Amino acid sequence: MTPIICTVDIVLLTLRSNKLHVALLKREQEPFAGMFALPGGYVHSEQDRDVQDAAARVLLEKTGFVSPYLEQLATFSGPARDPRGWSVSVVYYALVPEEIILNQTSIKLLPVEGLKGLPFDHQHVVETAVARLRSKSTYSSLPVYLCEPLFTLPHLQEVYEAVLGEPINKVSFRRKMKVLAMVEAVDGVMEAGKANRPAKLYRLKKEFKNSLSLLNRAFNAG
Amino acid sequence: MTPIICTVDIVLLTLRSNKLHVALLKREQEPFAGMFALPGGYVHSEQDRDVQDAAARVLLEKTGFVSPYLEQLATFSGPARDPRGWSVSVVYYALVPEEIILNQTSIKLLPVEGLKGLPFDHQHVVETAVARLRSKSTYSSLPVYLCEPLFTLPHLQEVYEAVLGEPINKVSFRRKMKVLAMVEAVDGVMEAGKANRPAKLYRLKKEFKNSLSLLNRAFNAG
Repeated sequence: MTPIICTVDIVLLTLRSNKLHVALLKREQEPFAGMFALPGGYVHSEQDRDVQDAAARVLLEKTGFVSPYLEQLATFSGPARDPRGWSVSVVYYALVPEEIILNQTSIKLLPVEGLKGLPFDHQHVVETAVARLRSKSTYSSLPVYLCEPLFTLPHLQEVYEAVLGEPINKVSFRRKMKVLAMVEAVDGVMEAGKANRPAKLYRLKKEFKNSLSLLNRAFNAG
Repeated sequence: MTPIICTVDIVLLTLRSNKLHVALLKREQEPFAGMFALPGGYVHSEQDRDVQDAAARVLLEKTGFVSPYLEQLATFSGPARDPRGWSVSVVYYALVPEEIILNQTSIKLLPVEGLKGLPFDHQHVVETAVARLRSKSTYSSLPVYLCEPLFTLPHLQEVYEAVLGEPINKVSFRRKMKVLAMVEAVDGVMEAGKANRPAKLYRLKKEFKNSLSLLNRAFNAG
């Protein structure tokens, strides 16, 4: 039996100018040397405890990041997606604020809208990640990972709007934030640079630093 | 680099006496020969077009079923889950009515509640599948795959209640079914064996035979 190639790829998403962008790296080696692609690499059975561990290692090696949130997206496979042979790629996705990426000159950020020309099946992989992010953002704290550590509620609402691609009613937004209960006001700290009516600053609660707060989706509710 | 073992496993779920059960097969070969485990097998790079194709092939070979709905659950991995070595298992889950399984004497059905003693990491895999099924059933047509081709609405409600493990308000149920719009009444056909007030029989609409109908979970809604 021909051995199967086992890799991980990471879809690293961020907001730039309020639009979703994906992080790409120039490939050093064949196949597709010189092209921009998702950060990825082989699973190392001597070193990795599982594929999630492999994804975190590859992300760190290739970008210098440790992402607080890294979720398995799906596994993509087949004989044609990688010219080296029949391959399985377990894909993870991560969200980071743009500020973290700015110092990484090797990373190219491209808007997810209108993205094309990616090698492998990375176009389809990115589309799958964006669909998952949008779907999950309707009922969870996921978009908060796109914010810097301190943020205002109006900014958090803009982030949700940018991810969902639609305006959100302010009352509905505040109500959902109350139910999700994943942020807390930082006492005595206000938004800088606004003499009149500066907004309160918030942060993610410690218990949601590496996991999501989810809205209850009981069948009987709503 | 030590090659990685690449397999698929299938969590086949059904309802028996209104309780969720999982289908297990006695293992013919080592490791764990003689124990009951999830149907699974190696990915065959010469034969399978992708891992979903491998899962459908393994399910057919081992149980004789073609499942109309087969969804990727998650990928499980690591050095310890399979004694043969560092392995990656892409797991799919499927739902079938109990009647389909009754003729398969090789299959053992065990209730998912209180399940224990499974080999590999199959205990954890089954728990993950049941959690996904419960979560997805709150906003989709998924449980309908547990019904026979023709069913009454009261029966469909019982199926949803069995999956979710809680009673559902009838008005709320009927409203959600209307929005999901995945079933249609079969004209002129009524439930058999009920002389007084037999109920209408329904079936899944053709367009949802292999895909789900999903409730809109827009952020602004509800």
